[in-house]
Amino acid sequence: MSVLKRNNVHVAGRGQQTLLFVNGFGCDQTIWRYILPALAEQYRLVLFDHVGAGLSDAKAYDPTKYASLQGYAQDVLDVCAELALTDVTLVGHSVGAMIGALAAIQEPARFQRLLLLCPSPCYLNEADYHGGFDRVDIDNMLSFMERDFVEWADTFAPLIMGNPDRPTLSAELIHSFCQNDPVIAKQFARVTFLSDNRSDLARLHTPCLLVQCAEDLIAPLEVGDYLHTVLPDSKLVTLPVSGHCPHVSAPRETLAAMEAYMAA
Amino acid sequence: MSVLKRNNVHVAGRGQQTLLFVNGFGCDQTIWRYILPALAEQYRLVLFDHVGAGLSDAKAYDPTKYASLQGYAQDVLDVCAELALTDVTLVGHSVGAMIGALAAIQEPARFQRLLLLCPSPCYLNEADYHGGFDRVDIDNMLSFMERDFVEWADTFAPLIMGNPDRPTLSAELIHSFCQNDPVIAKQFARVTFLSDNRSDLARLHTPCLLVQCAEDLIAPLEVGDYLHTVLPDSKLVTLPVSGHCPHVSAPRETLAAMEAYMAA
Repeated sequence: MSVLKRNNVHVAGRGQQTLLFVNGFGCDQTIWRYILPALAEQYRLVLFDHVGAGLSDAKAYDPTKYASLQGYAQDVLDVCAELALTDVTLVGHSVGAMIGALAAIQEPARFQRLLLLCPSPCYLNEADYHGGFDRVDIDNMLSFMERDFVEWADTFAPLIMGNPDRPTLSAELIHSFCQNDPVIAKQFARVTFLSDNRSDLARLHTPCLLVQCAEDLIAPLEVGDYLHTVLPDSKLVTLPVSGHCPHVSAPRETLAAMEAYMAA
Repeated sequence: MSVLKRNNVHVAGRGQQTLLFVNGFGCDQTIWRYILPALAEQYRLVLFDHVGAGLSDAKAYDPTKYASLQGYAQDVLDVCAELALTDVTLVGHSVGAMIGALAAIQEPARFQRLLLLCPSPCYLNEADYHGGFDRVDIDNMLSFMERDFVEWADTFAPLIMGNPDRPTLSAELIHSFCQNDPVIAKQFARVTFLSDNRSDLARLHTPCLLVQCAEDLIAPLEVGDYLHTVLPDSKLVTLPVSGHCPHVSAPRETLAAMEAYMAA
């Protein structure tokens, strides 16, 4: 099984410089479609699906490998190696941002910069760190997901997407969640919400754009501030929008932030 | 400019047998995402965007070439040649169905069968033929589109999609329409709605599945009956659903019809 098939890799666009998109939890590469047309003329776009999502090969799922985000980061590096990508601008959303950061830590020479949308190195509240969730809240959410994945998606997608006045956005995210292999998605959620990658960040030396949303239930403003503090070569942009998926709910603002950073 | 870049070709799935998807007006390849996961294990999936849609190269647009559906059919054949596809099962939606039929007429050896969703060889009412629209209605619609493409999309997407109780479906189609290059989309609409390819059908000898929807404002039941009559090697299935996009609004029923035909 080739890497390109395993991760359903799709190369598009007509530029020289590579943008590599790393999806967040429960999403496949079609989630980026609102911002891609504006980028296709100038960049080479590399899209893929995590194993268990989209049109990836679910048979390639290995519970041991994917028991930490490192397994997903390895797949990012596999895609880079297979396509011989260099000077990559990695665009990562949510847990995809942290997966991208781990990939850049492991092979820094591969990456020019990281554009991270709603990143968080740790969703749990800890001493001197506000991740946004108490452990009991995460445990309850994961138990809910264990019991009924579809009901979980129906309940949590609107909270994640925000923008309650635009229900089509949440409907899209619910559908996206429900397209995943539920057994794999449940383990991926556990790995996502219980990981603490704060100690890895000292080894991240790639320039980063951090894009946070003013009202985001998953990655609160304190997390963006934390990342900006511990990553010396980072720029923090706070979009005046709500929700945890600005590439879906606020594509113009998201594109503007990405393009301004890349032009600088 | 390679064909693969021009038409944003994406190859996915893990089977040997090829399914080639030909999009309808105003849609890009992400419109198929509701039915693809169920097909990815068993088939090789070839997706692409017409020039002017999705992540295709709009600079490749040639008003002369694309002044008839034959220009779009040539692109289908270019994709087949570039990937050396054989024994292709072509899945075409709406005008994509007729584009696929023209491709199969031109290179019959390339195609094993056609699965046509809501096909129509002619949208105009003519003597002894009920296409569904009087010329004045088409002209008025095209004038509306000329004046204000976005307003046209807002007005017509709900009529095309049907299923008014599920507004997220129409919202998706509105968004899809508005992602197109409007100048190209306007000419494509004109070519779509004013073409009459009935006389070509006598030269189509590839086996066809015709999938029509019980309530479809764009391709009424008379059109399916007409196609079934003039295409001896065709099977007609009427889904008990509404709308012109069953791969979006009724993916399970659509898949069932496709899979039953392919298994027979």
